[in-house]
Amino acid sequence: MVLTDDEYHHAVKVRRLKEGDKVEVNDLQGNIYLGEILKIEKNKALIKPIQKQDIKIPDYKITLYQCMPNQLSKIDDIIEPISQLGVDRFVPVLSKNSAVKQSDVEKKIQKWEKIALNSIKQCRRLYPVSIDKPVKLSNINSYDDLKVVFYEKEYERKTKDLIGKTFQNCSIVIGNEGGFKEDEINLLVDKGFLPLSLGNYILKMETAIIVGICQIKIILER
Amino acid sequence: MVLTDDEYHHAVKVRRLKEGDKVEVNDLQGNIYLGEILKIEKNKALIKPIQKQDIKIPDYKITLYQCMPNQLSKIDDIIEPISQLGVDRFVPVLSKNSAVKQSDVEKKIQKWEKIALNSIKQCRRLYPVSIDKPVKLSNINSYDDLKVVFYEKEYERKTKDLIGKTFQNCSIVIGNEGGFKEDEINLLVDKGFLPLSLGNYILKMETAIIVGICQIKIILER
Repeated sequence: MVLTDDEYHHAVKVRRLKEGDKVEVNDLQGNIYLGEILKIEKNKALIKPIQKQDIKIPDYKITLYQCMPNQLSKIDDIIEPISQLGVDRFVPVLSKNSAVKQSDVEKKIQKWEKIALNSIKQCRRLYPVSIDKPVKLSNINSYDDLKVVFYEKEYERKTKDLIGKTFQNCSIVIGNEGGFKEDEINLLVDKGFLPLSLGNYILKMETAIIVGICQIKIILER
Repeated sequence: MVLTDDEYHHAVKVRRLKEGDKVEVNDLQGNIYLGEILKIEKNKALIKPIQKQDIKIPDYKITLYQCMPNQLSKIDDIIEPISQLGVDRFVPVLSKNSAVKQSDVEKKIQKWEKIALNSIKQCRRLYPVSIDKPVKLSNINSYDDLKVVFYEKEYERKTKDLIGKTFQNCSIVIGNEGGFKEDEINLLVDKGFLPLSLGNYILKMETAIIVGICQIKIILER
């Protein structure tokens, strides 16, 4: 096996591993191996696999419905954190406050899939987050037993209120910087989504996404 | 009152507010006012204050002890999220895996304070996060009733295990990309810090910081 690119950089430059040290390698086919570094070259490291690692897969699934920001490059930066947080499926959403065109979002999907693939290599995740084609907010449909929307005008109901209840899977809707229109929230409530507050302070989109997922994981984890 | 810079951009460009619309303005002296936009000019907006807002201040305090990454510019990017998440005090820490010099960290403090000040304006926070001079990990001392260190080799104990207990204030230690040396964790445990896991997957430093704070806030919030 060979370490290259980000994996090489992380092992050799950041962690400063040497020949003979142990390192974990994802073969991108559903396996992670513990291996020994045989040889470090300029841009790659040769690894001898020693044993297959036993990886615990969460017994819940998280789908993130994310309203598209006007600056689509912001999504480039959140694919890695949502991948590391264990989101299973990412659905780009066109809401009333999204000024981007569906075709512009579609053009980005290949890039996001590449980032998703790259980001699992270091984080002990077996498969990358799957990325859907964009959907209109009004077309969101989820059969998950927990469905939430983090809404900037919800002041009372918090994720913490759900502690103690058990859920299998969760769909999370998160707005872009412009937030939601009231009729969009009403529509989501009709579809079974629970509006939740993210806390007292206003968060920028990138932070809100991480905080929202992290709060829901505390509820889903057993 | 006048909106400029980031506040102007957010209100006029992102939220697309017009003259006559209402907007909140932080006077940076401990008050947030609801105001009306009187006039929008090229790079500023004139605001007439209408009433002082009643802002709920959390009844707990969070101190973040953050081990310095080798690339100090990464800290520039986390000052805004930790500010929006309500961290009260930020202490740069020099650990065994920090290759940066104390003097290099000290040179950055003014810049971080400026980012902290700028980032409270939009998020309904009254005062900026205070930023300490760097300390060595071995010199960390905290009298908070909850003291935690998120440790990459802690696999059992999770933040969720603390649910139901009540704490007043929390000190959080978070490592840089290299993680902690075992003797550093032993030292922190001797000082009363509880090692906690951040979950199954390995997170990059910026994500780990947001996730760690967010998990602790769920415990502290009542």
